[in-house]
This record gives sequence, C-alpha cells and structure tokens, in this order.
Amino acid sequence: MYSAPVEEIAFTLNHVAGLSGALEEGRFGDLSSDLVAAILEEAGRFASGEIAPLGEKGDREGAKLDDGEVKTPKGWPDLYRRWREGGWNGLTAPEAYGGQNLPHMLNVAALEMWNSASMAFALAPTLTMGAIEALAAHGSDSLKEVFLEKMVSGEWTGTMNLTEPHAGSDLGVLKARAEPRDDGTYRIFGQKIFITWGEHDVADNIIHLVLARLPDAPAGTRGISLFLVPKFLVNEDGSLGERNDVLCHSIEHKLGIHGSPTCTMIFGDGRFGEEWGAVGYLVGEENKGLACMFTMMNNARLAVGIQGVAIAEAATQKAIAFAKERIQGKAPGWAADTMSPIIQHPDVAQMLLTMKALTQGARAICYVCAHATDMSHHHDGAEAQHWAERAALLTPIAKSFSTDIGVDVASLGIQVHGGMGFIEETGAARYLRDARIAPIYEGTNGIQAIDLVTRKLPLSGGDQVRGLLAELKQVADEVSARDETSFGETGGRLRAAIAALEAATVWLLQAQADGRTADALAGATPYQRLFGLVLTGVYLAKGGLVAVDNGEGNGRVSLCRFMAENLLAETSALKDRVIAGSASLAAARGLLD
Amino acid sequence: MYSAPVEEIAFTLNHVAGLSGALEEGRFGDLSSDLVAAILEEAGRFASGEIAPLGEKGDREGAKLDDGEVKTPKGWPDLYRRWREGGWNGLTAPEAYGGQNLPHMLNVAALEMWNSASMAFALAPTLTMGAIEALAAHGSDSLKEVFLEKMVSGEWTGTMNLTEPHAGSDLGVLKARAEPRDDGTYRIFGQKIFITWGEHDVADNIIHLVLARLPDAPAGTRGISLFLVPKFLVNEDGSLGERNDVLCHSIEHKLGIHGSPTCTMIFGDGRFGEEWGAVGYLVGEENKGLACMFTMMNNARLAVGIQGVAIAEAATQKAIAFAKERIQGKAPGWAADTMSPIIQHPDVAQMLLTMKALTQGARAICYVCAHATDMSHHHDGAEAQHWAERAALLTPIAKSFSTDIGVDVASLGIQVHGGMGFIEETGAARYLRDARIAPIYEGTNGIQAIDLVTRKLPLSGGDQVRGLLAELKQVADEVSARDETSFGETGGRLRAAIAALEAATVWLLQAQADGRTADALAGATPYQRLFGLVLTGVYLAKGGLVAVDNGEGNGRVSLCRFMAENLLAETSALKDRVIAGSASLAAARGLLD
Repeated sequence: MYSAPVEEIAFTLNHVAGLSGALEEGRFGDLSSDLVAAILEEAGRFASGEIAPLGEKGDREGAKLDDGEVKTPKGWPDLYRRWREGGWNGLTAPEAYGGQNLPHMLNVAALEMWNSASMAFALAPTLTMGAIEALAAHGSDSLKEVFLEKMVSGEWTGTMNLTEPHAGSDLGVLKARAEPRDDGTYRIFGQKIFITWGEHDVADNIIHLVLARLPDAPAGTRGISLFLVPKFLVNEDGSLGERNDVLCHSIEHKLGIHGSPTCTMIFGDGRFGEEWGAVGYLVGEENKGLACMFTMMNNARLAVGIQGVAIAEAATQKAIAFAKERIQGKAPGWAADTMSPIIQHPDVAQMLLTMKALTQGARAICYVCAHATDMSHHHDGAEAQHWAERAALLTPIAKSFSTDIGVDVASLGIQVHGGMGFIEETGAARYLRDARIAPIYEGTNGIQAIDLVTRKLPLSGGDQVRGLLAELKQVADEVSARDETSFGETGGRLRAAIAALEAATVWLLQAQADGRTADALAGATPYQRLFGLVLTGVYLAKGGLVAVDNGEGNGRVSLCRFMAENLLAETSALKDRVIAGSASLAAARGLLD
Repeated sequence: MYSAPVEEIAFTLNHVAGLSGALEEGRFGDLSSDLVAAILEEAGRFASGEIAPLGEKGDREGAKLDDGEVKTPKGWPDLYRRWREGGWNGLTAPEAYGGQNLPHMLNVAALEMWNSASMAFALAPTLTMGAIEALAAHGSDSLKEVFLEKMVSGEWTGTMNLTEPHAGSDLGVLKARAEPRDDGTYRIFGQKIFITWGEHDVADNIIHLVLARLPDAPAGTRGISLFLVPKFLVNEDGSLGERNDVLCHSIEHKLGIHGSPTCTMIFGDGRFGEEWGAVGYLVGEENKGLACMFTMMNNARLAVGIQGVAIAEAATQKAIAFAKERIQGKAPGWAADTMSPIIQHPDVAQMLLTMKALTQGARAICYVCAHATDMSHHHDGAEAQHWAERAALLTPIAKSFSTDIGVDVASLGIQVHGGMGFIEETGAARYLRDARIAPIYEGTNGIQAIDLVTRKLPLSGGDQVRGLLAELKQVADEVSARDETSFGETGGRLRAAIAALEAATVWLLQAQADGRTADALAGATPYQRLFGLVLTGVYLAKGGLVAVDNGEGNGRVSLCRFMAENLLAETSALKDRVIAGSASLAAARGLLD
C-alpha cells in the first residue's frame, strides 16, 4: 500500500526546487519551514491512510450512471467531505474567498500525494482548482461573489467543458453555442465529451466552465467564449435553486481511472428548466474564452505532469516491496543456501533503480516548474517576467516527460511482479491503466512538444532556454569540481548530455528561423524527452551535492550516478534523431498513404 | 478491424527469413511456393474474417467460471471447431498422427495472424501445439497412440502445468507430487497456477502436461518428472471414460487476454474418481521432466515472441486507419483550406513509422528464428548443429524484443488515438492490455536476457554469435556498396550499430570468462534490446535490398532508412550501458535495502 514519501518530497521542494531559499528570503511572508513540514506530513497521512485504501476499492467498483445521476464508488462522498474539511482544496486559493494563498509548489506536492493514493479521486479537486483559477482571474465580481467561496471550500466542484467529438486538440472548430438573453445571461446548447467529474454525488453543486460560440462569432479560436454553467442555479440568498438544463448523457468505459466519471454532457436539450438552454454566465470578455483558459493552462498541465510522478512513485513503492518479499532463484553473490529475494538479481535491481531515478527526476522537474510559477508571482518586473518564462518553458517538459515516465515506470512495475503483475487484484496493473491517460489529456504529449519547440524555445529570442542551459552546466561543473569518487563519471556524463541538449536546441531554433517547420516538428518529441532526461540527471545531481554537503551518506549520489552512467547515454541518440531524423521521416511518409 | 498482411508476411518469409531459398533447394520436399502462398492466404482470410470479430467481442465478455466449468465467450466453441476443421492445428505436426509436417516458419506465420485477430483465442492452440511437441518427442508409443491424433486434429487441447505459487521463474522448488501405482500409472497431487486454457468448453478433452516430483526424487530441477493427466480418462476403444481427479478451482481476473481462461488447477483433491489423486502417465524418464520441457521451449518462446509481433501489427493497422480518418489541426505544408488528417502531422507520422519499423523488424527476427529451427531439422551433422545453435541464439531475442516492442507499439497506438484511445470501445486499449503479459510468461524477458548472455553467447565458444555478426556486416556493406541515395545513411548507421553490438558482445563474453557474472547480468537486458534493434535494422535493410533488386519502388528502402536514421542511434547508448553501467548499479544497490 502507498506510503507518502514525505521526506523525499520535502527534500526535493527545499533543496532541488528552491523552496528553502525562497522561505529564507521571505518570499512567502511569514510562512515557515516548520509549517511547510507540518502541511506535508498531514497531507501524507491523509493520502496514505484515508485515500489509498478507498482508491483501490474504487478502481474495482468504478463510477456508475443511472438516469443522469452518477454514483461514485462506495465511501467516496464521505472521503471527499473529510478531504475538503481538511482545507486541502483551497491551499493556493485567494484568502478573500477562504483560501490559504500558499505557494503553488506546496499544492503540487500535495497533489502528488492525492494522485499516488488515487488518481481517479484526485481528479475531482484538480478540476475544481483549475476552475477556481480561471474564475478568480477572469470572472466578474458578482460571479466570484456567488461561486468562489463554495468552490474554494470544495463544497461545490468545478469542471472544464472543452472537447467535442470533432474538436479535441484543435478547439477552433468547436460548435457549442451560446445565445445572449436580455437579462445579461446566456443560454448554452451543445454536447461536450470527456468531461472529467462532469456529474457525481460528492458535492451539492457542480460549476461547469464551458467553451461555446456566440452567434456571429468569428470562425476559429477567436470566436470562442467562456461561460459558467452551474448544475443548480443559485438563489440570491446563496441557496440552491432550480436544476439547470445540463445533463450527463453517458459515462465512458475506460482503460483506467475507473472511479472518475468521464461524462458526455448535454447542454440545453430541454430536460430541465422552463425554457430550453442551460443558463450560463459569461466569464471574461466575449470571444476571449480561449485566452481565459490559457491563463490556467500552465498549472493544469503541471497538475497532469504530477499525476505521472504520482503513479510512478506508487508503482515503484509497490514493486520494491514485492521484490523484497518474493523469493525466487539464486542471485550471483547470494551466499546463503536458500533462494534469494528477487531484488538481489541484477536485472530486477536495474529495473527498480531505473524506476526510482526517473520518478525522482520527474518529481524535481515538476517542483522546479511550480517554483518558477511561485517566483513569477513573488517578483516584479523583469524578474517576474523571467520566472514566468521559466515556468512556461518547463511546463511542456514537466507534463510530457513525467507522464511518459509514469507509463514506463508503471509498466516496469508490472514486469517486476512477473505473472502476479498481470492479475488485477495485485494492483500493479491498475497503475499502468491509470497512467495511460496522462500523456493524452490536457494537451497530448505531441502537442506539448510542438508547444515546447515552436513557442517556448523562442522565448526572449532563445535567451530563456540558453539561460537554463547555463545553469545546468554549473551543476555539472560543480559535480566534477568536487572530485568525489562516489560520483563516478557523473560530471562528464552530465556535460555530454547538456551538450547534446544544447546542440539540439541550436538546431531547432535555426530550423525554425529558416522556416523549416516540418523538420523542427519531426524532432519535437525526441527533443522533449532529451530535455527531460537532462533535467533529471542534473536535478538528481543537485540533490546529490546537497546530500554530500549535509553529510547524508551516499544514497542520493549513487542514484544520480546510476542515472548518469545508465540512462543519460540515450541523450546522444535523441540529439541525433532531432538533427538527422527529419529527412528520413519525410522520405518515408509515403508509406503511410 | 484487423486485415491480415499476407503479402508482407510472405515477403518476409521468402526474402528475409530464407524460405524461398530453402524451397528452391528442395529442403521441404515437394512443397511449392504456390502452396505456401495459398496457405497464407487462407489463414489470413480466416484470421481477419472469422476470428477477429469474435476476438473483440470475446475480450468484452471474458471467460467465466461456474462450479468448476469454464464458459468461453459466446461463439468461441463454434469458432474453435471451424478453425480446427480447417486443419490449422496440425500444420507442423507429424504426418503419422494426422499432421501436415510443414515448415515451422509457416506455422509461426499463421500463429501471427491468429494472435493478431485474438491473442486470447490463439493461446488455446498455442498450448496444444506445445503439448503435441513434448509428447511426440518424449511420450511412449502407447501414450502417443492414445492421445496424439486427437490432439493434432485439435479435438482435444493441451496445457502446460508448470507454475506453482512459490515456483515461477525457478521451477526447481515446485512441490506437486506424483505417487507411482502398481499398474505403471501415477497419482498426481498438488496445485498449479496460471494454467492457460486449463479448463474450457471448446473441446471434449483436455490433456494436461504436469510437472511433479516423485517420492524421494532429488531436490531441485533434477527431481522433476513430467506427467500426462487427461481431464477425462480414455477407454481402450478410444472413447472418453471417467472424469479424472483434476479441477479448475478458480480463474484469474487479469489485465488482458480476457477470453483466455487462466486457471488454478487442483490435482487430486478427491472430487472426482474413486480414489484420491489424478491419474497421470509418465512422459519420458523419471526425474527428466524439465529436460522434456526444454525440448519444446525454443518453439514455445518463439510462439510468445510472435504474439508481440501480432499485437504490434494489429495496433499499427488500427492507428494508421484512425490517423487517416481523424481530422484535426493543420499540418505544416498542408495546402488545403481545411484541417488535415492527423497522419499529416510530423509527430504522428513519426509515431506510426516507428510502430511500422519495429513491427516489421520483430516479425523478421521471429521468422528468421523459425527458419533456423526448420533448417536444423532439414540438415545433418555440423550444419544441423549450426542451425540449432542459431535458433537457440535468436530465441531469447525473438521472445523478448518482440514482446517488448509489442507493449511499446500498443502504447503508441493508444497515443495516436488521443482521448479515444483510452476508451475501451475503441479497441486500441485492448492491445496494450493483451500485450502486457507477453514479456512475462514463458520466461520473463529478464530470464531471456540471462539465457542469452550466459548460455547462448558462449555457444561454440562464441563462434555462433561471431558468425551471425559477420553475416550482419555483409548486409550493411552491401547497402553501402549499392550507392543508392534512397538508402540515405543506412549503411553507415548499420555498421556503427553492429560495431556497438560487437563491442558489447566481446565485453560480455570477457566478463563471464573473468567470472564477473553480476556485471554481465547487470547489462543483460540492455544487451538484449541492443541485439534486437541491430537485427531489426539489418533485416529491414535486407528487405530493402531485395525490393531494389525487384524494382519494387522505395517503400522498403525508406522504412529501413527511417529505422537507421531515427532508431539505431540508441544502440550506442545501450552498448554504453552494457559496458559501463554495472559499476553504478552495484554502487546503488544499497538504495533498495
């Protein structure tokens, strides 16, 4: 069973991602490291002790739909109530609406733990947090007045209604429509699919944020507006009023996250209300809906990235526990006259260390990304701009690399279990099933790669990525300067990997400057993984350096060395693919006709 | 829906794996290439038209257990009857028992198609074929007389009962026991788990091959005997007699292959028969049971390898079809004013070409391996020995590489589908669920890697692997010699990859000669993948050369070039990991305590 790695999380937050430095600088007011530790400890306790047991059961039971009503797994409504009463929903929300206004990175750390315990369960607040963010940034005062406090407390949950059957990665072609009414409200009509927690029984009201088109709106992405559509209208005294004309038509039968209802929502088919059409309230300006969504996109993508970390952590824990218990064969060097635990076999050990290294690396990337967002909020002017760009640059990597390794680590976890891994009751297979959605939703990892290469590399004319590369080199140089034998070849391997990343970066910037977009896009996905591997290597090394300074023993150093000497060589192949792969891709395209 | 790639299969058999040359030499008597083509055509028709539709339904329905009786999905008993009446079960079986004694590689090609259509369904005959092989090689004349003909026709199916809860990869510790009786029979007692098609409703009788220990048998693998235990005893006139004391106690709830009942079998609990104990007949000699199993292990492992190919093929077909239909966004260079099919996006194209290249490469490896087995049966003396060694060397690679890429390709297939890929009704997720068992059963891929490094590399003092490397180099040199621009950098990339494989091979042989077993085993899995990638590159190039000679156009050449310029660079990283990874693995082992 999952046990929250609170110490590891705190170490990464403080010493790799920069939280302790920011606390010392007083960036977060009077927030103390003791309070941070206490929050993490309590989140870990709730995740391991309360969510995890019901998460496993909830996967077997799944969410069920009956005549428009969704029943979540047994015990989940009560679990959710206890969770929100703990104040977890509003960690980063504005204090004016009952939130705690804590650093974003703390919430990301907490999200990691909720997701490790049950990704299906954690999706409910993840969506609510996104809705709060969009509403807080773009909602009118009166909308915020009516809705935000209940959403921050978690009494009401939120959803994002973007996708339609023909409009997924490309939202420009969505068809849902909004008709203005004289009273300033709108009536919303249309169908939305893949709506996470679109209907359920854990909260009294559900606040849908819906993208739709006004009559005569411009075609494409410039003609999309954002609307708030509550499941129940809210009376002037704040009590719940009439049922709005929005209905869960069906829920999906999915590979994983069975406890999370994935809904097809129908707006305005006249089932509820006196007049056809779901009552909606404009959020932000007309035709600026997509821009409103974009303000929360970095955080939403990071929240999916952390799901990859979360599953990888849980899968790794489970595999290590199994490999210590399972006795089979005799490993080389096993002195006893008995069989050895399989963890003693070199091949099993290399799988487990790979899982551990990738998990900790992805965690560091996500936390560093969250820290950049926090810093952008706690600095001004050029510095704020720098940190916002840093967060923007790291976000697609945090999302894609973490979710890719989430799948890989979960798959390795099954492999470590042998035949038992394929049996559902063991629980290892669930991690792979759950993990598999994360590279897809909130912008597929292919979309992330396009974003990284075409929009993020050119930030500040390339200076943002060049600045990051310089920082990475400093870590590599420091490792070499230490002359600690326990680092092995880490310094040299890191420098080679960073050089590969730099060469690929230069090539991609040049390809785009030359207008060779197709060439650049052909290498976008290998480049994204290359970037993730380099960051993993460097952040593990950074942790290793701190551990040496703190006299903590060799654990972190040996993990970064394992990473450097086993997993970083791939960076050269990836660079090669970025630079030399596009010609053969173009030549082979005809094969797909 | 799956459409059997008969032309591609025939090309690979004939021109990459060597079938057409062997036919010309008359190695298979009067077997003609026309007959081969007709067999493949008919197998493809049955797989696509008959099995595939019921395979998909069968996955949703699954096998069910009710009081010891297993019900397979609707339509499967009739499907199985039609399949065996087509004579497919006995393709390679001895003519004396009604088989057709055709080349093994033809059966492997047919198995690919059955498995693409439904891996769960294809497992039934796969197990029967293994049982036939063991029985034909080691059974007494009287046993063969009673059982073989019905098994070859498929009227009775076979199973392999090896695993026990505490004895998986290490069979030496199994506990099932066999008590001799005065009449020369035995009574079998014990529990076996993970028994594929251990109980079902598609055939009249089930012939279990069971590993068990005789009283006072030596400990470990030298004290294991093999027994034939029929579900129903057989009367002297060949009719079915009493129910034997063997029972399906439960079936597993698994990640995939839902239509295939995975049974826990109880032998000798007294539920059936007058006397406790399941009646069993010794196969081969006492205490030589494991050796009997080993004679069929190469073929059984190859049969699992081809499952990886089969799933990869089906997943690739599905993803390409979807990517042609799905319209989303606008790819670079897309001239029309509309959105483009996603197959036009470079990132999607590189996923699909990766899937295609890995699938065709793994197919070639499996067929080449099957060809080596055939040649070992159709040569004598040193040549037979050479081919047997070649099959032995290639088997772990065929099993592991194909099943690993089966998982990877199925996972990419989901990714290409975007959100639809996560919905079970789409069918893409089923391929990942089914594929995930293949790297585990019939010897985990970690076990394959140990086998490859410790038992196969040293064959003929290393001459076998050196001979293969020399052959691979010839292909690379021929590509370079052609001076065809369409090959791009294929020749140089292949030579570099083969050099990496050679360096890793030399290192592993030396490490073992030096007694550094743990170091060698640490690199065994990366080495296995390295070998598979090199073979993929070379065999695709071999196909490309034939295509050029035949004036077939650039398709095959562009695929081998894509492979060489995009996927072969990884070989250098893998070599590095083999040679330089073990020290850091050893240093980091403490992290797992």
